[in-house]
Amino acid sequence: MSFSVLHHNHHVAPLSSSSSSIFAQKTFTALRTQVVSVAPKKAAGVCKCVATSPTEQTAYKTKVSRNGNIAKLQAGYLFPEIGRRKAAHMLKYPDAQVISLGIGDTTEPIPEVITSAMAKRALGLSTVEGYSGYGAEQGEKQLRAKLASTFYANLGIEEDDIFVSDGAKSDISRLQVLFGSNVTMAVQDPSYPAYVDSSVIIGQTGEYQKDIEKFGNIEYMKCTPENDFFPDLSKVSRTDIIFFCSPNNPTGSAASREQLAKLVKFAKDNGSIIIYDSAYAMYVSGDTPKSIFEIPGAKEVAIETASFSKYAGFTGVRLGWTVVPKELKYSDGFPVAKDFNRIVCTGFNGASNIAQAGGLACLSPEGLQAMHEVVGFYKENTKIIVDTFTSLGFTVYGGIHAPYVWVHFPGRSSWDVFSEILEKTHVVTTPGSGFGPAGEGFVRVSAFGHRDNVLEACRRFKELYK
Amino acid sequence: MSFSVLHHNHHVAPLSSSSSSIFAQKTFTALRTQVVSVAPKKAAGVCKCVATSPTEQTAYKTKVSRNGNIAKLQAGYLFPEIGRRKAAHMLKYPDAQVISLGIGDTTEPIPEVITSAMAKRALGLSTVEGYSGYGAEQGEKQLRAKLASTFYANLGIEEDDIFVSDGAKSDISRLQVLFGSNVTMAVQDPSYPAYVDSSVIIGQTGEYQKDIEKFGNIEYMKCTPENDFFPDLSKVSRTDIIFFCSPNNPTGSAASREQLAKLVKFAKDNGSIIIYDSAYAMYVSGDTPKSIFEIPGAKEVAIETASFSKYAGFTGVRLGWTVVPKELKYSDGFPVAKDFNRIVCTGFNGASNIAQAGGLACLSPEGLQAMHEVVGFYKENTKIIVDTFTSLGFTVYGGIHAPYVWVHFPGRSSWDVFSEILEKTHVVTTPGSGFGPAGEGFVRVSAFGHRDNVLEACRRFKELYK
Repeated sequence: MSFSVLHHNHHVAPLSSSSSSIFAQKTFTALRTQVVSVAPKKAAGVCKCVATSPTEQTAYKTKVSRNGNIAKLQAGYLFPEIGRRKAAHMLKYPDAQVISLGIGDTTEPIPEVITSAMAKRALGLSTVEGYSGYGAEQGEKQLRAKLASTFYANLGIEEDDIFVSDGAKSDISRLQVLFGSNVTMAVQDPSYPAYVDSSVIIGQTGEYQKDIEKFGNIEYMKCTPENDFFPDLSKVSRTDIIFFCSPNNPTGSAASREQLAKLVKFAKDNGSIIIYDSAYAMYVSGDTPKSIFEIPGAKEVAIETASFSKYAGFTGVRLGWTVVPKELKYSDGFPVAKDFNRIVCTGFNGASNIAQAGGLACLSPEGLQAMHEVVGFYKENTKIIVDTFTSLGFTVYGGIHAPYVWVHFPGRSSWDVFSEILEKTHVVTTPGSGFGPAGEGFVRVSAFGHRDNVLEACRRFKELYK
Repeated sequence: MSFSVLHHNHHVAPLSSSSSSIFAQKTFTALRTQVVSVAPKKAAGVCKCVATSPTEQTAYKTKVSRNGNIAKLQAGYLFPEIGRRKAAHMLKYPDAQVISLGIGDTTEPIPEVITSAMAKRALGLSTVEGYSGYGAEQGEKQLRAKLASTFYANLGIEEDDIFVSDGAKSDISRLQVLFGSNVTMAVQDPSYPAYVDSSVIIGQTGEYQKDIEKFGNIEYMKCTPENDFFPDLSKVSRTDIIFFCSPNNPTGSAASREQLAKLVKFAKDNGSIIIYDSAYAMYVSGDTPKSIFEIPGAKEVAIETASFSKYAGFTGVRLGWTVVPKELKYSDGFPVAKDFNRIVCTGFNGASNIAQAGGLACLSPEGLQAMHEVVGFYKENTKIIVDTFTSLGFTVYGGIHAPYVWVHFPGRSSWDVFSEILEKTHVVTTPGSGFGPAGEGFVRVSAFGHRDNVLEACRRFKELYK
């Protein structure tokens, strides 16, 4: 197959040319022979598909050392692990109607005002006027401006403080690359596992200490019912970075204005930087802050990361943003935002333009209305779950400002409870200890689900724990 | 503004509540007073917008040290720098018809067979049946399978070796995070700046050495007309990682089968890992390899990263993939793909589902046909540019297997030629030295442009250099 320079090639075929396939084929045979002579037993034993990948069982290793930081990580990342257990359960009970209130994945369709804007943008890309190539790495100007005016009006956050992204998880990793391996970090215990895991990967931590279930050189800030899920800062050591998620995943608790003011003061006194994860801010009611920048002085000590995932069902569409105020400075006075901009320009090429069109539609009056309805729906689910566990005599936390219910099973192992619930009700939850040692004895029940499924799951919970 | 748990809130307003804005306002005044008392002169001098961000001029600095690796980077990332120069030129000549043959951004509309699939997927997200939340971090199974069969048929690359991403640039950064700071790397000189810059950011390099325009601890593999743009491997020191882009950006040259066989042998002898950037593979004609995996044994020493950007005009849609064969092992025998999977799961949540629907449409028979036509169109542009410079007596390279023409201006500074062309023809190109010191004396002319613009640019080149 060849493409000439001046003529379109109308012969459509797989791109690996037949000549190269033949070439490869010949060599595979040669390699196979070699393999058999080198390690005949292994080859015979492990080999499953000789015809397509005969080199699989060779003993060749590069001389590149495995990244020791990644080797420190424990088992699998939590949510894929839960996915595996769910899959195994479905194999075991092929006829069971499995309901997932586990990984916090949205289930409700995206409002049409938003998807029609994305469809329009997609179709427009087929026209000369509607086509656009590389966008600004930081996001489209109009979207950045609209994010600033919608979420940060009167808070002094401006369009150029906002970096649009493909989601908070990606931005958390980019923030770790930004700060590098020489900073220290604190994290709520329990917390969303990506903070700790990304910190381990970038090399900020020591080894995992099995006995206490913590990594060395991370400050775990215990958040339990005893301290109203807000760390006792008098016992927290100074770190460079403080990850703080509110409303919190997994506990569902939201820090009050007074608590956040304490946190900002703590950061300011220590010269620390807060990375504030506000992915659930729209679930907040009343005067509880929706942004860390509602706290005076926060712009000098905080970064905020946010997402459309849980407001508009964008978990699969992928769109979020991170605010790095120009007031935030390193110890030498250099603006953090300038370096973050460099990270974004070097390692990211902007969020999908179609997703950004969706984001803009989310922020139209109709889009905001529609997102409030989606959030309201999941909050109704939350209430149903809270009421169910409460009626069964459990102590539950969260569920007011967040789509997560944190159910206490005193004295029991979270994974045991997870397994019990899965085995007996076919409902997937998330074991609290997966979020950190202080999550032991809790199970997180997510309110993301179709109403029928939430009601059915609650019926089964009542059956199990009556 | 408050959202009750059980009732939808139909009052739509900016999310920062008015109460909190008032609260913030009060405190800003307090802060301002404080600022003035601390550093009155500075505050008075720098202050631009007291009403909205009165803290901007404060002297507060955190105690967090700036990441020393990022501080090593030189000036701006190349392409934003060119964007700035273009913008300055347009300010200077507001009436000029500026043509960009600079950053390699696609200009032609995306074929309808592809955008209609994306629009359909987007609209489907508003339905119960069509909605999907978090996808697999590695990409949708169907797309991975189709990528394997389309691009790697008979090459032994399987569905689970392929990680779908939001583009090659993001994957290059993720690969740097994968290998970490303790590996050494080699790169073609000249090359796409993201390889070197991402290596600097992750901490693999020494300081920038101004006299030789190179970073310490990077092996620059000179690729010039003298060596047919293929490094003299007998002079290249062993490194852990070898970045290799073919067809090459910026030189437009594509390594032959024999050259790539040498490269694979070199990697194998040294136990190195090749990161092969094949973003322009569809521009290749004849027997020149389109994938490193056409070379026998490459699966044990190579990773390949690829993209839909330059085939389907997806520069703004964002979709690519990276192949990490299960045969590729670290020195301790651990599979590299297992760690890459962990990186992807921890720091990425998959490419946009709408973009993935577009990717699948790209690989349908109609989509492949349409992509070949897009590629064919840009190759026609390339020929026009090659012929123009050749007719003017210039020696040009590239332009056969790639949409880039590498024009030689012997003895001249690349930035001077860039400026001369911009000033006198209003055409944006890219200075060769921006890709590395061996690019000095060259200018890259991109063939991405509407036909009229390419013809007009060539008319102006003929005027300037007649």
